[in-house]
Amino acid sequence: MLNTIIKILRNCFPAPEVHAHCDGPCGVYDPASARITAEAVLSMTKKIIDLEVPATGDKAAHIAYQNLLSRYISIKEEQAQKTKDDLLILWTDYFKPIHIEQYPDLHDIFWKAAKLCSACKVEVSLKNAQELMDSVQNIHQIFWSTKNRDISWYKASS
Amino acid sequence: MLNTIIKILRNCFPAPEVHAHCDGPCGVYDPASARITAEAVLSMTKKIIDLEVPATGDKAAHIAYQNLLSRYISIKEEQAQKTKDDLLILWTDYFKPIHIEQYPDLHDIFWKAAKLCSACKVEVSLKNAQELMDSVQNIHQIFWSTKNRDISWYKASS
Amino acid sequence: MLNTIIKILRNCFPAPEVHAHCDGPCGVYDPASARITAEAVLSMTKKIIDLEVPATGDKAAHIAYQNLLSRYISIKEEQAQKTKDDLLILWTDYFKPIHIEQYPDLHDIFWKAAKLCSACKVEVSLKNAQELMDSVQNIHQIFWSTKNRDISWYKASS
Amino acid sequence: MLNTIIKILRNCFPAPEVHAHCDGPCGVYDPASARITAEAVLSMTKKIIDLEVPATGDKAAHIAYQNLLSRYISIKEEQAQKTKDDLLILWTDYFKPIHIEQYPDLHDIFWKAAKLCSACKVEVSLKNAQELMDSVQNIHQIFWSTKNRDISWYKASS
Amino acid sequence: MLNTIIKILRNCFPAPEVHAHCDGPCGVYDPASARITAEAVLSMTKKIIDLEVPATGDKAAHIAYQNLLSRYISIKEEQAQKTKDDLLILWTDYFKPIHIEQYPDLHDIFWKAAKLCSACKVEVSLKNAQELMDSVQNIHQIFWSTKNRDISWYKASS
Amino acid sequence: MLNTIIKILRNCFPAPEVHAHCDGPCGVYDPASARITAEAVLSMTKKIIDLEVPATGDKAAHIAYQNLLSRYISIKEEQAQKTKDDLLILWTDYFKPIHIEQYPDLHDIFWKAAKLCSACKVEVSLKNAQELMDSVQNIHQIFWSTKNRDISWYKASS
Repeated sequence: MLNTIIKILRNCFPAPEVHAHCDGPCGVYDPASARITAEAVLSMTKKIIDLEVPATGDKAAHIAYQNLLSRYISIKEEQAQKTKDDLLILWTDYFKPIHIEQYPDLHDIFWKAAKLCSACKVEVSLKNAQELMDSVQNIHQIFWSTKNRDISWYKASS
Repeated sequence: MLNTIIKILRNCFPAPEVHAHCDGPCGVYDPASARITAEAVLSMTKKIIDLEVPATGDKAAHIAYQNLLSRYISIKEEQAQKTKDDLLILWTDYFKPIHIEQYPDLHDIFWKAAKLCSACKVEVSLKNAQELMDSVQNIHQIFWSTKNRDISWYKASS
Repeated sequence: MLNTIIKILRNCFPAPEVHAHCDGPCGVYDPASARITAEAVLSMTKKIIDLEVPATGDKAAHIAYQNLLSRYISIKEEQAQKTKDDLLILWTDYFKPIHIEQYPDLHDIFWKAAKLCSACKVEVSLKNAQELMDSVQNIHQIFWSTKNRDISWYKASS
Repeated sequence: MLNTIIKILRNCFPAPEVHAHCDGPCGVYDPASARITAEAVLSMTKKIIDLEVPATGDKAAHIAYQNLLSRYISIKEEQAQKTKDDLLILWTDYFKPIHIEQYPDLHDIFWKAAKLCSACKVEVSLKNAQELMDSVQNIHQIFWSTKNRDISWYKASS
Repeated sequence: MLNTIIKILRNCFPAPEVHAHCDGPCGVYDPASARITAEAVLSMTKKIIDLEVPATGDKAAHIAYQNLLSRYISIKEEQAQKTKDDLLILWTDYFKPIHIEQYPDLHDIFWKAAKLCSACKVEVSLKNAQELMDSVQNIHQIFWSTKNRDISWYKASS
Repeated sequence: MLNTIIKILRNCFPAPEVHAHCDGPCGVYDPASARITAEAVLSMTKKIIDLEVPATGDKAAHIAYQNLLSRYISIKEEQAQKTKDDLLILWTDYFKPIHIEQYPDLHDIFWKAAKLCSACKVEVSLKNAQELMDSVQNIHQIFWSTKNRDISWYKASS
């Protein structure tokens, strides 16, 4: 309710403070970076679960399996870290005090999203990976709404 | 002409070869990564040109100027390199021989785009930075057309 | 007041939730990493301000000056980023919901510390660099108090 | 045939265009970087295949085996990526349009070499790793021939 | 004996040569960085050894086990490398010829410490990891003694 | 003299200890990596000194000059660091106690070479850059002599 009122008010009155506080490299923030890497986390999680464990004694199949498994785990780790990094750049560099007034839960939203990135490393969990995607989508909505732009959400892997 | 016919044919007949050759981490390619960093290259190029050279003898202004200039140049360098890396991932990992048949100029398109990334490092040139953006947009069109998807082009900084 | 009561209670009753939520790489968190790099930010800021601008026309002195200035700015940038990374690892991986109850300002403390890291990049400011040191010292106190350990604060560069 | 004629002509007439287009960091290109990392890919591939799977139930041997296997896979991944990076630096920064006239297959040679790097990651294949070595040796010949220098090919691991 | 005499002499006479040779980024050296990462190597080594191998046939447990094992090995690798890097920064940048006179074994101490870092990667050995901690503690004593400061040794994970 | 005798003896009797101590990723060491990056340090040093300072008041020339200068300094920094890293990998991973017996100055040779890398960062000095090249050439001789191989020294930039 309050949120909606703040949004309406904000649309009427431009927020010069936002731009006044804009630091050096600003101007090109886009949650699409975090969305792409979160998709990769979900994709790797699926691939790990779908890998078939080879029969004992088939050494060639065993090596091929270990190579794929090891790579998928390591790519999942790397992409989850990139997702975390990109989300935290939005939180620490893009968002300003005025946004916290509009979205009082913002700190908590980013804290939980960052913890989900870590959880996606520690476990192999479709539930975590899907929740991370949902969290990135939520941040996508918040981000573009603060810019009064209507950018549609899509997935590269769909 | 030939291109159009190939596209029509391709729409009618799915291309199993493409998926058959799909390597390990595949599935989540998106030219949006390269678009975001190319926007940053353009933004930094503008900021460098817009910086006002301070009057001789004002040491504080001189230091502030050198700090900003040095950072903008270094961010431009880094973002141009990331653009190059992301474009070359598309070229070496996503595109398959069947795509070369569809787009016979593909190698040359990527070679020139990669050389533009280097040129954006070596010079401070709005023309180069804008040409890089155009080149990334062209690759965006080609990429999504090979997937038969209609993803609209947008800029985060607009 | 409330804070003190919570601390006393916490000393009496071990907090199994903390350990239950402990993720993979846990166990070795130490704000000393962030303190060392924040010291480097302060040191580089001082060195930049102390550099003497050479007389016009002395090319060798000009090159030597530009080389030092460019390196100091770039080391300041790198160390400020490492400080930010290390602080955010504490925030996203070490701290758990129970700590937020104890320190309700925790999100805000880390948000402002992270923004100070960015400010130390964008400007050449002794005030920012000193505030970052103070902020890291505050986080040092909070961190060790949550572990009921008494680790003294020192500076490598003193 | 045509290739040979072009080479003879080129030896007679120096190619000022090449140097005229030389970008910023030019001057020190050497395919030896890619050769060293490709050798490491081949070496790691051999080591993975030669590792003996320990008997079930011997936990210490199992841990030692997993540690080595995991490291070899990860070093193979890293070295294959470095090989790819170094080859693409040659392709995008060293080679100029005049070289494409001399070696019309150049784009294709580099595209296939880059794809071999990826294949060496995805599979554990002596055949791929050996083909990558052959490809790097071919690029070594082309590279030094464009510089009219006779640099002998050797392997560090022989 | 000789060592003790040198130390006493050094306390009486300040060593201007040390500061005179101080290079660009000097001023903020602290062996605490190497201590933190060496602790992580020890912690990861313990966790690898403590992991329980799941029963054959339980695929979910097998995946969870492989994910943890793979991450622990990879974190151990990374932290051992960081320990090595931080130790070698001390050796190559902080220590000066005058220190070699005071500690004639200094080269050998660092060489063996660096080799221990590599050994901690290659093997999963509590003995190596503990020896690395001891070696870092020894370097901590030497380092602070050259600065005539009394900084107490502590562990974050204790 | 002694050195020569040791070499002769070593040629007669293979040194199984060397191979017995060979750690995980061994087999592909080559000082050519350090030579290539040391050449880049020398090349960048020359380019920095050769850059012409533009006339005061020509803003476009000023920006172009600052962009090139900033990049050359930063590439020099990066390449000097890579040279240092590659030399230290040889020192810590390739060389074994038996080599120290053969080359009692080995620790000192690497210590001074590493300090030269740092000096090449801190100053813009042709003398330092040339001494680094000489030092790498010396290490090239020592390295290949320990392997009883005759690999000729060449420069990519000659």
